[in-house]
Amino acid sequence: MTSWQATELSALTVGVLGGTGDQGRGLALRLGLAGVPVVLGSRDPARAQAAAADLPEDVHGTDNRSCAGEASVVVVAVPWQGHAALLAEVAAELTGKVVVDCVNPIGFDKQGAYPLPVAEGSACQQAAALLPASYVVGAFHHLSAVQLLDPAREEIEGDVLVVGDDRAATDLVQSLVGLIPRLRGIYAGRLRNAGQVEALTANLISVNRRYKAHAGIRVTDV
Amino acid sequence: MTSWQATELSALTVGVLGGTGDQGRGLALRLGLAGVPVVLGSRDPARAQAAAADLPEDVHGTDNRSCAGEASVVVVAVPWQGHAALLAEVAAELTGKVVVDCVNPIGFDKQGAYPLPVAEGSACQQAAALLPASYVVGAFHHLSAVQLLDPAREEIEGDVLVVGDDRAATDLVQSLVGLIPRLRGIYAGRLRNAGQVEALTANLISVNRRYKAHAGIRVTDV
Repeated sequence: MTSWQATELSALTVGVLGGTGDQGRGLALRLGLAGVPVVLGSRDPARAQAAAADLPEDVHGTDNRSCAGEASVVVVAVPWQGHAALLAEVAAELTGKVVVDCVNPIGFDKQGAYPLPVAEGSACQQAAALLPASYVVGAFHHLSAVQLLDPAREEIEGDVLVVGDDRAATDLVQSLVGLIPRLRGIYAGRLRNAGQVEALTANLISVNRRYKAHAGIRVTDV
Repeated sequence: MTSWQATELSALTVGVLGGTGDQGRGLALRLGLAGVPVVLGSRDPARAQAAAADLPEDVHGTDNRSCAGEASVVVVAVPWQGHAALLAEVAAELTGKVVVDCVNPIGFDKQGAYPLPVAEGSACQQAAALLPASYVVGAFHHLSAVQLLDPAREEIEGDVLVVGDDRAATDLVQSLVGLIPRLRGIYAGRLRNAGQVEALTANLISVNRRYKAHAGIRVTDV
Protein backbone atom coordinates (compact mmCIF):
# COMPACT_ATOMS: atom_id res chain seq x y z
CA MET A 1 0.00 0.00 0.00
CA THR A 2 1.32 3.42 -0.99
CA SER A 3 0.12 6.80 0.21
CA TRP A 4 -2.28 8.33 -2.30
CA GLN A 5 -0.91 11.80 -1.68
CA ALA A 6 2.65 10.88 -2.70
CA THR A 7 1.97 8.66 -5.69
CA GLU A 8 1.33 9.04 -9.40
CA LEU A 9 -2.27 8.27 -10.27
CA SER A 10 -1.27 5.38 -12.51
CA ALA A 11 0.65 3.68 -9.71
CA LEU A 12 -2.24 3.65 -7.24
CA THR A 13 -4.07 0.42 -6.52
CA VAL A 14 -7.84 0.93 -6.43
CA GLY A 15 -9.89 -1.37 -4.23
CA VAL A 16 -13.56 -2.09 -4.83
CA LEU A 17 -15.48 -3.26 -1.77
CA GLY A 18 -18.52 -5.24 -2.83
CA GLY A 19 -16.62 -5.81 -6.02
CA THR A 20 -18.64 -8.79 -7.22
CA GLY A 21 -21.82 -6.78 -7.79
CA ASP A 22 -22.64 -5.33 -11.21
CA GLN A 23 -21.55 -1.79 -10.33
CA GLY A 24 -18.33 -2.97 -8.68
CA ARG A 25 -17.36 -5.28 -11.55
CA GLY A 26 -18.27 -2.61 -14.08
CA LEU A 27 -16.04 -0.01 -12.42
CA ALA A 28 -13.24 -2.57 -12.01
CA LEU A 29 -13.48 -3.44 -15.72
CA ARG A 30 -13.26 0.19 -16.82
CA LEU A 31 -10.41 1.04 -14.44
CA GLY A 32 -8.61 -2.16 -15.39
CA LEU A 33 -8.94 -1.33 -19.09
CA ALA A 34 -7.44 2.07 -18.28
CA GLY A 35 -4.38 0.35 -16.82
CA VAL A 36 -5.18 0.89 -13.15
CA PRO A 37 -4.33 -2.03 -10.80
CA VAL A 38 -7.60 -3.06 -9.13
CA VAL A 39 -8.36 -5.36 -6.23
CA LEU A 40 -11.90 -6.63 -5.86
CA GLY A 41 -13.15 -7.30 -2.34
CA SER A 42 -16.02 -9.54 -1.31
CA ARG A 43 -17.23 -11.23 1.84
CA ASP A 44 -16.35 -14.44 0.02
CA PRO A 45 -12.80 -14.20 -1.41
CA ALA A 46 -13.45 -17.13 -3.79
CA ARG A 47 -16.28 -15.16 -5.42
CA ALA A 48 -14.02 -12.12 -5.75
CA GLN A 49 -11.32 -14.26 -7.37
CA ALA A 50 -13.85 -15.74 -9.79
CA ALA A 51 -15.15 -12.28 -10.74
CA ALA A 52 -11.60 -11.00 -11.24
CA ALA A 53 -10.82 -13.90 -13.58
CA ASP A 54 -13.23 -12.38 -16.15
CA LEU A 55 -11.67 -8.92 -15.86
CA PRO A 56 -8.41 -7.42 -17.17
CA GLU A 57 -5.14 -8.99 -16.09
CA ASP A 58 -4.28 -6.44 -13.43
CA VAL A 59 -7.49 -7.12 -11.45
CA HIS A 60 -7.42 -9.66 -8.65
CA GLY A 61 -9.87 -10.69 -5.93
CA THR A 62 -9.72 -11.15 -2.17
CA ASP A 63 -11.79 -10.59 0.97
CA ASN A 64 -13.08 -7.10 1.79
CA ARG A 65 -10.63 -6.50 4.62
CA SER A 66 -7.56 -7.42 2.56
CA CYS A 67 -8.93 -5.33 -0.29
CA ALA A 68 -9.21 -2.30 1.99
CA GLY A 69 -5.70 -2.96 3.27
CA GLU A 70 -4.03 -3.37 -0.12
CA ALA A 71 -5.53 -0.37 -1.90
CA SER A 72 -4.83 3.36 -1.50
CA VAL A 73 -8.16 4.42 -2.99
CA VAL A 74 -11.16 2.32 -2.07
CA VAL A 75 -14.50 2.37 -3.88
CA VAL A 76 -17.50 1.34 -1.78
CA ALA A 77 -19.97 -0.47 -4.04
CA VAL A 78 -21.94 -2.60 -1.59
CA PRO A 79 -25.73 -2.62 -1.31
CA TRP A 80 -27.03 0.13 0.97
CA GLN A 81 -28.28 -2.45 3.46
CA GLY A 82 -24.69 -3.61 4.13
CA HIS A 83 -23.04 -0.17 3.96
CA ALA A 84 -22.68 0.80 7.62
CA ALA A 85 -21.68 -2.66 8.87
CA LEU A 86 -18.97 -3.13 6.25
CA LEU A 87 -17.42 0.31 6.76
CA ALA A 88 -17.33 -0.16 10.52
CA GLU A 89 -15.58 -3.51 9.99
CA VAL A 90 -12.79 -2.16 7.77
CA ALA A 91 -12.42 1.32 9.30
CA ALA A 92 -8.88 0.65 10.53
CA GLU A 93 -7.71 -0.48 7.07
CA LEU A 94 -9.20 2.67 5.51
CA THR A 95 -7.34 5.11 7.76
CA GLY A 96 -5.73 7.90 5.75
CA LYS A 97 -7.17 6.63 2.47
CA VAL A 98 -9.55 8.04 -0.11
CA VAL A 99 -12.90 6.28 0.20
CA VAL A 100 -15.10 6.72 -2.88
CA ASP A 101 -18.71 6.05 -1.99
CA CYS A 102 -21.09 5.27 -4.88
CA VAL A 103 -23.89 3.73 -2.83
CA ASN A 104 -27.47 4.85 -3.55
CA PRO A 105 -29.94 4.49 -0.67
CA ILE A 106 -32.95 3.71 -2.85
CA GLY A 107 -36.13 1.74 -2.17
CA PHE A 108 -38.54 0.17 -4.65
CA ASP A 109 -42.26 -0.42 -4.62
CA LYS A 110 -45.02 -0.80 -7.23
CA GLN A 111 -44.63 2.84 -8.22
CA GLY A 112 -40.92 2.51 -8.85
CA ALA A 113 -37.83 3.82 -7.08
CA TYR A 114 -37.67 6.39 -4.31
CA PRO A 115 -34.95 7.69 -1.96
CA LEU A 116 -34.69 6.12 1.47
CA PRO A 117 -34.24 8.44 4.44
CA VAL A 118 -30.72 8.37 5.89
CA ALA A 119 -30.14 9.63 9.42
CA GLU A 120 -26.76 11.16 8.50
CA GLY A 121 -28.23 12.82 5.39
CA SER A 122 -26.65 10.53 2.79
CA ALA A 123 -24.62 7.37 2.39
CA CYS A 124 -21.52 9.56 1.93
CA GLN A 125 -22.15 11.38 5.18
CA GLN A 126 -22.73 8.07 6.94
CA ALA A 127 -19.35 6.91 5.59
CA ALA A 128 -17.70 10.10 6.80
CA ALA A 129 -19.20 9.60 10.26
CA LEU A 130 -17.96 6.00 10.42
CA LEU A 131 -14.54 6.81 8.91
CA PRO A 132 -13.36 10.05 10.54
CA ALA A 133 -9.73 9.27 9.60
CA SER A 134 -10.48 8.72 5.89
CA TYR A 135 -11.12 11.13 3.02
CA VAL A 136 -14.66 10.36 1.87
CA VAL A 137 -15.66 11.38 -1.66
CA GLY A 138 -18.96 10.65 -3.41
CA ALA A 139 -18.81 9.64 -7.08
CA PHE A 140 -19.96 7.12 -9.73
CA HIS A 141 -23.63 7.20 -8.65
CA HIS A 142 -25.21 7.62 -12.08
CA LEU A 143 -23.28 5.22 -14.28
CA SER A 144 -25.19 2.34 -15.80
CA ALA A 145 -23.71 -1.02 -14.81
CA VAL A 146 -25.12 -2.41 -18.06
CA GLN A 147 -23.06 0.10 -20.04
CA LEU A 148 -19.97 -0.36 -17.86
CA LEU A 149 -20.08 -4.13 -18.39
CA ASP A 150 -20.88 -4.02 -22.12
CA PRO A 151 -17.72 -5.31 -23.86
CA ALA A 152 -18.78 -3.70 -27.16
CA ARG A 153 -18.78 -0.23 -25.58
CA GLU A 154 -15.38 1.48 -25.70
CA GLU A 155 -16.53 4.79 -24.20
CA ILE A 156 -18.94 5.74 -21.44
CA GLU A 157 -20.85 8.92 -22.21
CA GLY A 158 -21.56 10.91 -19.10
CA ASP A 159 -20.34 13.04 -16.27
CA VAL A 160 -19.57 11.82 -12.79
CA LEU A 161 -20.61 14.27 -10.09
CA VAL A 162 -17.82 14.30 -7.49
CA VAL A 163 -18.66 15.61 -4.02
CA GLY A 164 -16.38 15.93 -1.03
CA ASP A 165 -14.82 18.20 1.54
CA ASP A 166 -11.11 17.61 0.78
CA ARG A 167 -9.84 19.26 -2.38
CA ALA A 168 -6.90 16.89 -2.92
CA ALA A 169 -9.19 13.89 -2.58
CA THR A 170 -11.88 15.21 -4.95
CA ASP A 171 -9.16 16.18 -7.44
CA LEU A 172 -7.76 12.65 -7.28
CA VAL A 173 -11.18 11.09 -7.90
CA GLN A 174 -11.83 13.46 -10.79
CA SER A 175 -8.51 12.37 -12.32
CA LEU A 176 -9.41 8.72 -11.82
CA VAL A 177 -12.76 9.25 -13.58
CA GLY A 178 -10.91 10.97 -16.40
CA LEU A 179 -8.95 7.78 -17.14
CA ILE A 180 -12.14 6.18 -18.49
CA PRO A 181 -12.66 7.27 -22.11
CA ARG A 182 -15.25 10.06 -22.51
CA LEU A 183 -16.19 10.20 -18.81
CA ARG A 184 -15.60 13.44 -16.95
CA GLY A 185 -15.40 13.98 -13.20
CA ILE A 186 -17.11 17.24 -12.31
CA TYR A 187 -16.73 18.75 -8.86
CA ALA A 188 -20.28 19.25 -7.61
CA GLY A 189 -20.06 20.47 -4.04
CA ARG A 190 -19.34 19.44 -0.51
CA LEU A 191 -20.38 16.23 1.24
CA ARG A 192 -23.49 17.89 2.64
CA ASN A 193 -24.70 18.02 -0.97
CA ALA A 194 -24.27 14.26 -1.53
CA GLY A 195 -27.82 13.23 -0.58
CA GLN A 196 -29.53 14.58 -3.67
CA VAL A 197 -26.81 13.17 -5.93
CA GLU A 198 -27.49 9.71 -4.50
CA ALA A 199 -31.28 10.18 -4.58
CA LEU A 200 -31.25 11.39 -8.19
CA THR A 201 -30.60 7.76 -9.12
CA ALA A 202 -34.31 7.15 -8.36
CA ASN A 203 -35.16 9.70 -11.08
CA LEU A 204 -32.81 8.04 -13.53
CA ILE A 205 -34.51 4.71 -12.82
CA SER A 206 -37.83 6.42 -13.67
CA VAL A 207 -36.27 7.72 -16.88
CA ASN A 208 -35.04 4.23 -17.73
CA ARG A 209 -38.52 2.76 -17.30
CA ARG A 210 -40.26 5.42 -19.37
CA TYR A 211 -37.73 5.61 -22.20
CA LYS A 212 -36.24 2.08 -22.15
CA ALA A 213 -32.85 3.69 -21.61
CA HIS A 214 -29.73 3.41 -19.49
CA ALA A 215 -29.77 7.06 -18.51
CA GLY A 216 -26.90 9.03 -17.07
CA ILE A 217 -26.28 12.76 -16.86
CA ARG A 218 -24.09 15.39 -18.44
CA VAL A 219 -23.43 18.83 -16.99
CA THR A 220 -23.89 21.58 -19.57
CA ASP A 221 -21.73 24.73 -19.92
CA VAL A 222 -18.69 23.02 -18.35
CA MET B 1 -59.54 30.90 -19.08
CA THR B 2 -59.79 27.66 -21.07
CA SER B 3 -59.48 24.12 -19.78
CA TRP B 4 -55.97 22.79 -20.38
CA GLN B 5 -57.27 19.31 -21.16
CA ALA B 6 -59.43 20.49 -24.06
CA THR B 7 -57.11 23.02 -25.69
CA GLU B 8 -54.29 23.04 -28.18
CA LEU B 9 -50.96 23.76 -26.53
CA SER B 10 -50.45 26.93 -28.56
CA ALA B 11 -53.78 28.37 -27.41
CA LEU B 12 -53.08 28.01 -23.68
CA THR B 13 -52.23 31.05 -21.62
CA VAL B 14 -49.33 30.40 -19.25
CA GLY B 15 -49.21 32.36 -16.00
CA VAL B 16 -46.01 33.00 -14.09
CA LEU B 17 -46.48 33.72 -10.39
CA GLY B 18 -43.53 35.68 -9.08
CA GLY B 19 -43.03 36.68 -12.67
CA THR B 20 -40.84 39.70 -11.99
CA GLY B 21 -37.92 37.65 -10.66
CA ASP B 22 -35.08 36.56 -12.96
CA GLN B 23 -36.33 32.99 -13.35
CA GLY B 24 -39.92 34.09 -13.97
CA ARG B 25 -38.96 36.75 -16.52
CA GLY B 26 -36.56 34.35 -18.20
CA LEU B 27 -39.23 31.69 -18.63
CA ALA B 28 -41.77 34.29 -19.77
CA LEU B 29 -39.30 35.56 -22.37
CA ARG B 30 -38.64 32.08 -23.78
CA LEU B 31 -42.31 31.08 -23.82
CA GLY B 32 -43.26 34.44 -25.32
CA LEU B 33 -40.64 34.04 -28.06
CA ALA B 34 -42.18 30.62 -28.78
CA GLY B 35 -45.54 32.28 -29.36
CA VAL B 36 -47.20 31.31 -26.09
CA PRO B 37 -49.44 33.97 -24.49
CA VAL B 38 -47.97 34.68 -21.03
CA VAL B 39 -49.31 36.61 -18.07
CA LEU B 40 -46.83 37.68 -15.39
CA GLY B 41 -48.08 37.89 -11.84
CA SER B 42 -46.58 39.90 -8.99
CA ARG B 43 -47.68 41.17 -5.62
CA ASP B 44 -47.34 44.61 -7.19
CA PRO B 45 -49.20 44.66 -10.55
CA ALA B 46 -47.36 47.80 -11.65
CA ARG B 47 -44.05 45.93 -11.36
CA ALA B 48 -45.46 43.03 -13.37
CA GLN B 49 -46.65 45.44 -16.07
CA ALA B 50 -43.23 47.10 -16.17
CA ALA B 51 -41.49 43.72 -16.48
CA ALA B 52 -43.87 42.63 -19.25
CA ALA B 53 -43.13 45.81 -21.22
CA ASP B 54 -39.58 44.51 -21.85
CA LEU B 55 -40.83 41.10 -23.02
CA PRO B 56 -42.51 39.88 -26.24
CA GLU B 57 -45.80 41.47 -27.27
CA ASP B 58 -48.02 38.66 -26.04
CA VAL B 59 -46.77 38.97 -22.43
CA HIS B 60 -48.69 41.17 -20.03
CA GLY B 61 -48.53 41.79 -16.27
CA THR B 62 -51.02 41.84 -13.43
CA ASP B 63 -51.35 40.84 -9.76
CA ASN B 64 -50.72 37.23 -8.71
CA ARG B 65 -54.39 36.40 -8.13
CA SER B 66 -55.51 37.67 -11.54
CA CYS B 67 -52.57 35.87 -13.12
CA ALA B 68 -53.66 32.58 -11.52
CA GLY B 69 -57.24 33.22 -12.67
CA GLU B 70 -56.42 34.09 -16.29
CA ALA B 71 -54.03 31.26 -17.07
CA SER B 72 -54.68 27.52 -17.59
CA VAL B 73 -51.11 26.51 -16.79
CA VAL B 74 -49.42 28.38 -13.95
CA VAL B 75 -45.69 28.41 -13.26
CA VAL B 76 -44.71 29.08 -9.64
CA ALA B 77 -41.45 31.03 -9.63
CA VAL B 78 -41.54 32.79 -6.27
CA PRO B 79 -38.75 32.64 -3.68
CA TRP B 80 -39.08 29.59 -1.43
CA GLN B 81 -39.76 31.83 1.55
CA GLY B 82 -43.02 33.04 -0.04
CA HIS B 83 -44.06 29.71 -1.58
CA ALA B 84 -46.59 28.36 0.90
CA ALA B 85 -48.29 31.67 1.63
CA LEU B 86 -48.78 32.56 -2.04
CA LEU B 87 -50.16 29.15 -3.00
CA ALA B 88 -52.62 29.19 -0.11
CA GLU B 89 -53.76 32.64 -1.23
CA VAL B 90 -54.49 31.65 -4.85
CA ALA B 91 -55.61 28.05 -4.29
CA ALA B 92 -59.16 28.71 -5.50
CA GLU B 93 -57.94 30.26 -8.76
CA LEU B 94 -55.70 27.25 -9.37
CA THR B 95 -58.45 24.65 -9.08
CA GLY B 96 -58.31 22.17 -11.95
CA LYS B 97 -55.19 23.75 -13.44
CA VAL B 98 -51.67 22.55 -14.09
CA VAL B 99 -49.32 24.13 -11.56
CA VAL B 100 -45.67 23.96 -12.60
CA ASP B 101 -43.45 24.38 -9.56
CA CYS B 102 -39.82 25.38 -10.22
CA VAL B 103 -38.99 26.57 -6.72
CA ASN B 104 -35.70 25.42 -5.15
CA PRO B 105 -35.60 25.33 -1.35
CA ILE B 106 -31.93 26.24 -1.04
CA GLY B 107 -29.95 27.98 1.68
CA PHE B 108 -26.59 29.72 1.48
CA ASP B 109 -23.73 30.16 3.91
CA LYS B 110 -19.96 30.73 3.66
CA GLN B 111 -19.49 27.23 2.24
CA GLY B 112 -22.00 27.78 -0.54
CA ALA B 113 -25.47 26.42 -1.25
CA TYR B 114 -27.22 23.56 0.49
CA PRO B 115 -30.76 22.10 0.44
CA LEU B 116 -33.18 23.30 3.09
CA PRO B 117 -35.29 20.68 4.86
CA VAL B 118 -38.96 20.73 3.76
CA ALA B 119 -41.58 19.09 5.97
CA GLU B 120 -43.56 17.81 2.98
CA GLY B 121 -40.39 16.45 1.31
CA SER B 122 -40.08 19.08 -1.43
CA ALA B 123 -41.55 22.36 -2.66
CA CYS B 124 -43.58 20.34 -5.19
CA GLN B 125 -45.06 18.13 -2.51
CA GLN B 126 -45.84 21.20 -0.41
CA ALA B 127 -47.66 22.64 -3.44
CA ALA B 128 -49.58 19.39 -3.90
CA ALA B 129 -50.60 19.45 -0.24
CA LEU B 130 -51.81 23.05 -0.49
CA LEU B 131 -53.50 22.55 -3.87
CA PRO B 132 -55.31 19.20 -3.72
CA ALA B 133 -57.57 20.22 -6.63
CA SER B 134 -54.68 21.16 -8.96
CA TYR B 135 -52.28 19.07 -11.05
CA VAL B 136 -48.84 19.82 -9.64
CA VAL B 137 -45.82 19.17 -11.82
CA GLY B 138 -42.18 19.96 -11.04
CA ALA B 139 -40.04 21.39 -13.86
CA PHE B 140 -37.58 24.15 -14.88
CA HIS B 141 -35.39 23.80 -11.76
CA HIS B 142 -32.01 23.71 -13.46
CA LEU B 143 -32.22 26.42 -16.09
CA SER B 144 -29.89 29.35 -15.74
CA ALA B 145 -31.81 32.64 -15.52
CA VAL B 146 -28.73 34.34 -16.99
CA GLN B 147 -28.99 32.15 -20.10
CA LEU B 148 -32.78 32.49 -20.31
CA LEU B 149 -32.51 36.28 -20.21
CA ASP B 150 -29.55 36.57 -22.59
CA PRO B 151 -30.97 38.18 -25.76
CA ALA B 152 -28.02 36.90 -27.82
CA ARG B 153 -28.87 33.29 -27.03
CA GLU B 154 -31.35 31.74 -29.43
CA GLU B 155 -31.28 28.25 -27.94
CA ILE B 156 -31.09 26.88 -24.41
CA GLU B 157 -28.99 23.74 -24.15
CA GLY B 158 -30.29 21.36 -21.55
CA ASP B 159 -32.93 18.99 -20.36
CA VAL B 160 -35.77 19.85 -18.01
CA LEU B 161 -36.56 17.06 -15.56
CA VAL B 162 -40.35 16.86 -15.31
CA VAL B 163 -41.83 15.13 -12.24
CA GLY B 164 -45.46 14.57 -11.40
CA ASP B 165 -48.20 12.07 -10.67
CA ASP B 166 -50.64 12.88 -13.51
CA ARG B 167 -49.58 11.66 -16.92
CA ALA B 168 -51.62 14.19 -18.92
CA ALA B 169 -50.16 17.03 -16.88
CA THR B 170 -46.53 15.88 -17.17
CA ASP B 171 -47.06 15.30 -20.91
CA LEU B 172 -48.38 18.86 -21.27
CA VAL B 173 -45.41 20.33 -19.42
CA GLN B 174 -42.98 18.28 -21.52
CA SER B 175 -44.65 19.67 -24.66
CA LEU B 176 -44.42 23.19 -23.28
CA VAL B 177 -40.70 22.75 -22.61
CA GLY B 178 -40.28 21.44 -26.14
CA LEU B 179 -41.48 24.75 -27.57
CA ILE B 180 -38.22 26.37 -26.44
CA PRO B 181 -35.50 25.70 -29.02
CA ARG B 182 -33.12 22.86 -28.03
CA LEU B 183 -34.70 22.27 -24.60
CA ARG B 184 -36.19 18.85 -23.91
CA GLY B 185 -38.68 17.91 -21.21
CA ILE B 186 -37.76 14.50 -19.80
CA TYR B 187 -40.18 12.63 -17.55
CA ALA B 188 -38.18 11.86 -14.40
CA GLY B 189 -40.52 10.25 -11.93
CA ARG B 190 -43.35 10.91 -9.53
CA LEU B 191 -43.72 13.87 -7.16
CA ARG B 192 -42.14 11.91 -4.32
CA ASN B 193 -38.94 12.14 -6.37
CA ALA B 194 -39.07 15.96 -6.66
CA GLY B 195 -36.95 16.73 -3.59
CA GLN B 196 -33.63 15.67 -5.06
CA VAL B 197 -34.39 17.44 -8.34
CA GLU B 198 -34.89 20.68 -6.42
CA ALA B 199 -31.88 20.07 -4.16
CA LEU B 200 -29.58 19.29 -7.10
CA THR B 201 -29.66 23.01 -7.80
CA ALA B 202 -27.27 23.37 -4.84
CA ASN B 203 -24.79 21.12 -6.68
CA LEU B 204 -25.15 23.13 -9.86
CA ILE B 205 -24.42 26.29 -7.87
CA SER B 206 -21.24 24.57 -6.64
CA VAL B 207 -20.37 23.69 -10.24
CA ASN B 208 -20.94 27.30 -11.27
CA ARG B 209 -18.56 28.56 -8.60
CA ARG B 210 -15.81 26.09 -9.39
CA TYR B 211 -15.99 26.32 -13.19
CA LYS B 212 -17.32 29.88 -13.68
CA ALA B 213 -20.23 28.37 -15.57
CA HIS B 214 -24.01 28.53 -15.85
CA ALA B 215 -24.43 24.80 -15.50
CA GLY B 216 -27.49 22.79 -16.40
CA ILE B 217 -27.96 19.10 -17.04
CA ARG B 218 -28.57 16.74 -19.94
CA VAL B 219 -29.85 13.19 -19.62
CA THR B 220 -27.78 10.73 -21.64
CA ASP B 221 -29.10 7.73 -23.62
CA VAL B 222 -32.53 9.37 -24.11
